[in-house]
Amino acid sequence: MNRRMILYMPLQILKVAAAVLLLPALVGLIYGETRHALVYLCVGAATFVLSVIGQRVVKPWTKVIYAREGFVIVALTWVLMSLVGALPFVITGDIPNYVNALFETMSGFTTTGASILTDIPAMSHANLFWRSFTHWLGGMGILVFVMAISNMGDRSIHIMRAEIPGPIVGKLVPRARETAKILYLIYMGMTLLEVALLWVGKMPLFDCFIHAFGSAGTGGFSSQAASMGAYDSAYLQWVVTVFMFLFGVNFNIYYLILVKKIGQAVRSTELRTYAAIAVISAAAIAINIRSMYATLGETVRHAAFQVSSILTTTGFSTTDFDRWPHFSRTVLVLLMFVGASAGSTGGGLKVSRVMILFKSMHREIMRLLHPKSVRSLRLEGKKLDETVVHNTLNYFALYMLCFALCFLVVSVDQFNIETSLTATAACFNNIGPGLGAVGPTASYAGMTTLSKLTLTLAMLLGRLEIFPVLLAVAPATWQRK
Amino acid sequence: MNRRMILYMPLQILKVAAAVLLLPALVGLIYGETRHALVYLCVGAATFVLSVIGQRVVKPWTKVIYAREGFVIVALTWVLMSLVGALPFVITGDIPNYVNALFETMSGFTTTGASILTDIPAMSHANLFWRSFTHWLGGMGILVFVMAISNMGDRSIHIMRAEIPGPIVGKLVPRARETAKILYLIYMGMTLLEVALLWVGKMPLFDCFIHAFGSAGTGGFSSQAASMGAYDSAYLQWVVTVFMFLFGVNFNIYYLILVKKIGQAVRSTELRTYAAIAVISAAAIAINIRSMYATLGETVRHAAFQVSSILTTTGFSTTDFDRWPHFSRTVLVLLMFVGASAGSTGGGLKVSRVMILFKSMHREIMRLLHPKSVRSLRLEGKKLDETVVHNTLNYFALYMLCFALCFLVVSVDQFNIETSLTATAACFNNIGPGLGAVGPTASYAGMTTLSKLTLTLAMLLGRLEIFPVLLAVAPATWQRK
Repeated sequence: MNRRMILYMPLQILKVAAAVLLLPALVGLIYGETRHALVYLCVGAATFVLSVIGQRVVKPWTKVIYAREGFVIVALTWVLMSLVGALPFVITGDIPNYVNALFETMSGFTTTGASILTDIPAMSHANLFWRSFTHWLGGMGILVFVMAISNMGDRSIHIMRAEIPGPIVGKLVPRARETAKILYLIYMGMTLLEVALLWVGKMPLFDCFIHAFGSAGTGGFSSQAASMGAYDSAYLQWVVTVFMFLFGVNFNIYYLILVKKIGQAVRSTELRTYAAIAVISAAAIAINIRSMYATLGETVRHAAFQVSSILTTTGFSTTDFDRWPHFSRTVLVLLMFVGASAGSTGGGLKVSRVMILFKSMHREIMRLLHPKSVRSLRLEGKKLDETVVHNTLNYFALYMLCFALCFLVVSVDQFNIETSLTATAACFNNIGPGLGAVGPTASYAGMTTLSKLTLTLAMLLGRLEIFPVLLAVAPATWQRK
Repeated sequence: MNRRMILYMPLQILKVAAAVLLLPALVGLIYGETRHALVYLCVGAATFVLSVIGQRVVKPWTKVIYAREGFVIVALTWVLMSLVGALPFVITGDIPNYVNALFETMSGFTTTGASILTDIPAMSHANLFWRSFTHWLGGMGILVFVMAISNMGDRSIHIMRAEIPGPIVGKLVPRARETAKILYLIYMGMTLLEVALLWVGKMPLFDCFIHAFGSAGTGGFSSQAASMGAYDSAYLQWVVTVFMFLFGVNFNIYYLILVKKIGQAVRSTELRTYAAIAVISAAAIAINIRSMYATLGETVRHAAFQVSSILTTTGFSTTDFDRWPHFSRTVLVLLMFVGASAGSTGGGLKVSRVMILFKSMHREIMRLLHPKSVRSLRLEGKKLDETVVHNTLNYFALYMLCFALCFLVVSVDQFNIETSLTATAACFNNIGPGLGAVGPTASYAGMTTLSKLTLTLAMLLGRLEIFPVLLAVAPATWQRK
C-alpha cells in the first residue's frame, strides 16, 4: 500500500474542491448575500492553503498506485469533501449543528437527498445552490471530475473504477482521462438541456438549476418544501420524470449514441431491463392508486414520476406517496434496492448487478438438473468473467449485511420498524425520502445523533459500493510491512 | 429425470403417512372423541388405498435416482402430505375452510407454527394432537423418518440431502439408513426427556406432549392461546427455553457426544457461534426491556425464552414481544433470518451458512488488498469446497429474492408494511408469529386467501430450502427427452 499517496491524492482533490466553492460565493454575490458569499470564499481559501501544506507533509516517493490505493483514495476524498463541504452551512448559521450539516452534505455528495431541514425556503441562495451542486458533483464523481480537468497520471483508471458504480467499469476510450472528459461533457450537456426545458416551462431560473442538479445527480434536494409537487404543471413534472430516467441510464449508452452506434445502444439488455422495470412498476402502481386521483392522466403522471424518482434513487416527489396503499408502497421499497443502471449517477444495487444475480441463480438451479454441464454467463453479448459473478454474489451478501447492521443501530431510535427500515433503505440506496416519519413530506430532523451518523455512513457505503469504505478502515491498509 | 420414480416415491411415503394417522385416531378414542377418531381412521384408510392404486399406475422401470430426483421427490412428498394432512381438520369441522386447513397443516409440517386459529381450546384433542405431531414429523423430516423405518434403497442419501437443511449434509455413518435411524433415536430420546421434565413441573400430560413436539420440531403450535405464557411457572418456561435451544443444535453434535467424541463436539465453531448469538441477543434485549418487568430474573427469563424461540425458529412465546421497544423487536426480526444450526430441526438461513457468507465476504475484501493471494475457506477445521461457497452465495441471493416476491404479494393485503414484512419473514423462516397484526397474541385468520396461499408456499420454500420446490415446478423436470 502506497500510504503517502492515499493521503496525498485526496488533498489534491480538495484543492480543486476549494475552487468549486467559488460558485456558491458567486451565487451569494448575485443574490446580495454578501456575508454568505464571504463565508464560501474564506472556507475555500482556507481549504486550499491547508491542502497545499498537507501535501508538502505527505509528499509521496512514488506515484504508482494499484486498485487497492484507488479504493482508499476515493473513500478518504469523499469523507474529506463532506467534512469541509459542511462548514459553510454551520458558519453561515443556516444549519448550526455540525452533525446535521455533515448529514446534509454527505446526503448531497452521495446524491441521497435525505434532509434534516424543516424550513427550506429560509436558506440563503448560496447555501441552497451549494447543497444542490454537491449532487451534481457527486453524481458523476468528484474524482472523475478532477480527472477530466487535470492530469492525474497513468494509474487514474483505478480511481475511476473505484468511484463509478457497477459490477464492471470499462473505459469508453483507451485513455482514462479522455473517458472522464467524455462522461462529463455528456453529463453537462444533458444537465443544461434539462435547465433549458424547465425554463421554457416557466420555472424560475434558480429553481431550474436546483432541480436539474437534483435530477442529473439523481440526488433529490429541492428548493421547495413540497419538492416537485410545488409546481402545478404537468409539463414540468414530466420533464423531470424523463430526465431522472435518462440520468439513471448507463452513460456508455450515450457514448454509443454519440459515436453513432445506435443499434448497439438500443440492444443493451441492461437498458431494456431497466426500462421494463420502470414501465411495469409504474403500471402496477397506477392501477393500485387509480381511485386516489381525479383523472387517468394525473394518476399515470404521479405513478411514473414516483417510480422514476425511486428507481433512479433520486427522491423527488410530486405527491405524498406515503399515503398510497401498502402494495404501491411495497413496490417502491423493493425498487429502492434495485436502483438504477450501472455507470449511471443512480444508486442501489444497480440493474446489471440484479441481472447477474438472476443469471447466476438460474445457472445454479440448472446445475441441479444437469450436474455435469458447465455454462458461462453472458451479459450484453459478452461472456462474464467468473470473478465478476463471484464478486457480485459477495457484494450482494455484504450489501444486505451492511443494510441489516445500519437498520439495527437506527432501530435504537424511537421510530417504528417501518420508519427505521425505510430510512436505512433510503439512505443506504441514496434515495432520500423513506416512509412513515421520514416520508416525502417529513425530514430526518427528528432523529438522534446516533441515527444521523449511522445514516451518514450508510449513504457513503451505498454511494461508494462498500468496498472503498471498508478498505479505508481496514487495519491491514495502515500497517507497515 | 426418472419421472416415474418421482411420483412413485411420494406415494410410498404417503402409505406410511396413512399409518401415522392412526395416532390421532388413538388420541381421539382415549378422550372419547369417537367421531373425530373415525375421521382419522377413514382418511388414513382412503389414503392408503389410493396410494397403493397410484403406485401401480406409475410403477417405475428402474429405481435409480440422482440428486435431482431426490429434490423433486422431497418437494412432492411434502405437498402431498400437507394436502392429505389438512383433510381431517376440514372433515371434523374444526377448520371448515380447506385453505385455512392447508395453511395450518403446512405450518405444522414445515415447523412454522403460524396459525389461523382464533379459538385453540375449542379444538378436539385428536386435532390438537395431529396439529402438533406434524411439527414432530416435519422437524427431522418425513422422508428421513420413512428411511429410518424401512429400506428405501441405496440411493436414499439423495433424499436425505434434499430434506435435511444446511449447506453441507454428511452421513454420520457410512450407510444413509443407519444415519436416519441414529438421528431419529436421538430425536425421540430428547423429545421424551422434555415430556418427562415438563410433567415433573406439573404440566398436564397432554400439554407436555404438545409442547415437546412444538419444541422438538422447532414448530411452535401450543394447546394454549397464550402459548407458554399460559403456564405461570419459571421452571416450565426455562425447560422449554433450554430444549428449544438444544433442538436448534446440529444433530451431528449429539452423535459426537454419543460416540464419546465430546472434545470435538464442544470445539464446533457452528455450535459456539450459535450459542454466542443467543447469549448476546438475549443480553441486549434484557437490557433494553429491563424496565418492563418487575424483577431481573423475570426480565432475563422472557428475553432468553423469546430469543431461543425466534433464533431456533420455534415461535413459542411467554410474553407479547410485539409490545417491546423497537430495538428489541428489530433484534428479533434479524434473528428470524439467521435461524438455527444446519442439521437441526430449525429454519432460517442457518448459522453455518451465515458463517460461510461472512468468511466469503472477508476473503473478497482481503483479495482487494492482496490481489494475488489464493485462500481457501475453512469450516469446522476442514477446507470448504468452492462449490459449497458458490452455492451458499447463490442460495442467499435466491433466498432474498423469494422473500421479496412473497412480501410483494402479501402486501396486496390491507396490512401495513411491518405486518406484511414480518408475516412473510415468520412464515418463510418457519417461525410462526411475526409483529403487528400477526404478533404473538394474534393469528393469521384475518389474511386473504391470496396471502394465506402465498405464505403456505413461503413455508414450504423455507423448510425445503427453495431448490426442491423450484425443481419440482421447473418445466425441464417434466419434459421428455
